[in-house]
Amino acid sequence: MEEKSFQEMLGKKTAEVQQVISGTLERYLKEKDELPYVHTILEAMEYSFMAGGKRLRPLLMRETYQLLCGEGKSGQTSLGEFMTALEMIHTYSLVHDDLPAMDNDEYRRGKETTWKVYGDGMAVLAGDALMNSAFEIAFSEISRTLSSDKSLEEKGRIAGCGEMLAKKAGIDGMLGGQVADVEAEKKNLPMDMDKILFIHERKTAALIEAAMGIGAMLSGAGEEEINKVLWIARKVGIAFQIQDDVLDVIGDSKELGKSVGSDAQSGKETYVTLCGLEKSKQEVARLSEEAAALLHELPGDHAFLEELILHLIYRKK
Amino acid sequence: MEEKSFQEMLGKKTAEVQQVISGTLERYLKEKDELPYVHTILEAMEYSFMAGGKRLRPLLMRETYQLLCGEGKSGQTSLGEFMTALEMIHTYSLVHDDLPAMDNDEYRRGKETTWKVYGDGMAVLAGDALMNSAFEIAFSEISRTLSSDKSLEEKGRIAGCGEMLAKKAGIDGMLGGQVADVEAEKKNLPMDMDKILFIHERKTAALIEAAMGIGAMLSGAGEEEINKVLWIARKVGIAFQIQDDVLDVIGDSKELGKSVGSDAQSGKETYVTLCGLEKSKQEVARLSEEAAALLHELPGDHAFLEELILHLIYRKK
Repeated sequence: MEEKSFQEMLGKKTAEVQQVISGTLERYLKEKDELPYVHTILEAMEYSFMAGGKRLRPLLMRETYQLLCGEGKSGQTSLGEFMTALEMIHTYSLVHDDLPAMDNDEYRRGKETTWKVYGDGMAVLAGDALMNSAFEIAFSEISRTLSSDKSLEEKGRIAGCGEMLAKKAGIDGMLGGQVADVEAEKKNLPMDMDKILFIHERKTAALIEAAMGIGAMLSGAGEEEINKVLWIARKVGIAFQIQDDVLDVIGDSKELGKSVGSDAQSGKETYVTLCGLEKSKQEVARLSEEAAALLHELPGDHAFLEELILHLIYRKK
Repeated sequence: MEEKSFQEMLGKKTAEVQQVISGTLERYLKEKDELPYVHTILEAMEYSFMAGGKRLRPLLMRETYQLLCGEGKSGQTSLGEFMTALEMIHTYSLVHDDLPAMDNDEYRRGKETTWKVYGDGMAVLAGDALMNSAFEIAFSEISRTLSSDKSLEEKGRIAGCGEMLAKKAGIDGMLGGQVADVEAEKKNLPMDMDKILFIHERKTAALIEAAMGIGAMLSGAGEEEINKVLWIARKVGIAFQIQDDVLDVIGDSKELGKSVGSDAQSGKETYVTLCGLEKSKQEVARLSEEAAALLHELPGDHAFLEELILHLIYRKK
């Protein structure tokens, strides 16, 4: 795929994804807007959610879904809801991560962080509300599907998506990675490769796994295909996070929309400080290529998804 | 029911409930304990959950379930999981509420709060993990029930329990009340009766509604009975919270396990400051009696549940 046409497709697809998830969020918030006294938290949730970002997770969910759905299969209708729920989980983790009690970041994606705008008490609550709302949407999809005339198999699949979302966001996933990261930093514990990989696998890869795994489940894929997708996601997720560490060293602050060199400044050990810039870059390339090779074992037209995965290597922001 | 025999039954039932929920929590934490690097958050979750409390919500869930289950009905087996999930939601809200960014409380139930012991970053994450785990348990129960040979109706009921848990914990429920409360306090907004009631209905009553509502749903009760139960819960919840405001004025710090007079000291307006101690006590009595009267319209032996509700009036802690 040519670079120009990939960038065009990426722009178009990201805009589509953005439209779906912001529409779903708007409908959700509008329902709550009838309540008095809760306006500020709805605003803080919307501010946090709409602050931008690459929408990588919902994009990966949709692309995986479309790849595996194929022509013949009917597919599910809960895709937009799960795309939004996952992005809400990702957003809440950023909101809490930026808190003075955690990373104490004042800017993200070039905008003031939620606590800077709304105060840290409200940011704690906005993060809580984003997580709660994500699961509320998932439960509501399960209930809706259960009372529909869909097959028992399809009903089980939607319930499985909720289960995967919670598991990959929890201690086995993102939160487990967060805890290991925070604790290593606060207590100044020695960092080694095992721990770095544990953190990357969970802090970042887990939600990518949820994205692609749920996309696969919603498409009606079988267990073997779902497991293959989860492996791809894991490799993509780790590569993405190592690339983050790389960009903290060589990235452009303006393009990134956040300050660079913050890891080095704070004395934080990363993949890059542990095994050097070159080896880190090679690892990103290796993981991404392995992911692409696994992708080839799946049916369907994976040209765009493959390009997207490989672009994680070359991304500058 | 005589006071002595009620207290005996309450002690026995609370101990039973405590055993069920701590057992469920232990099993859940044990599963995660195989992961490296996450020990601290498991410890912080356990510390927060085990810090005590009246276990009122799981107790109300079980009592409502048993009341409506009757002799003939088989009932569900997810009761222990939902009792634990609800108590985890309640616990996370206390952990986040106590944070320096929120109420800045150092003691709760006579013990140091989670952030005082583990630091405020870890307390944010422990709260997040408690909420996430609660929903993880609920999703897992739904999946388990869906793959069992239970009737489609029973399967729908379990999904409905998850939905109710998320809704009552969210912006329509507990979190909505928290936001209104925090904002009124931080911005020093004028408090009036409508807003106080909005806060009490959500900050406290919502989880009592979830407790009794889920208990009723799990028992297989019909819609009319469930709605009646939700009305009882709402009245009990508001009465409970007004009683909290009353105890802040007239309570004994040692018995309460927390400092009294904190509302007055911080200039916080409560039900009591708005309409006086006597009227507040009368309102607690009125609501509790109305709840008891509604309870009489339900089938089954409600002697204990009625006594429990009425004891909310006379509680000293």
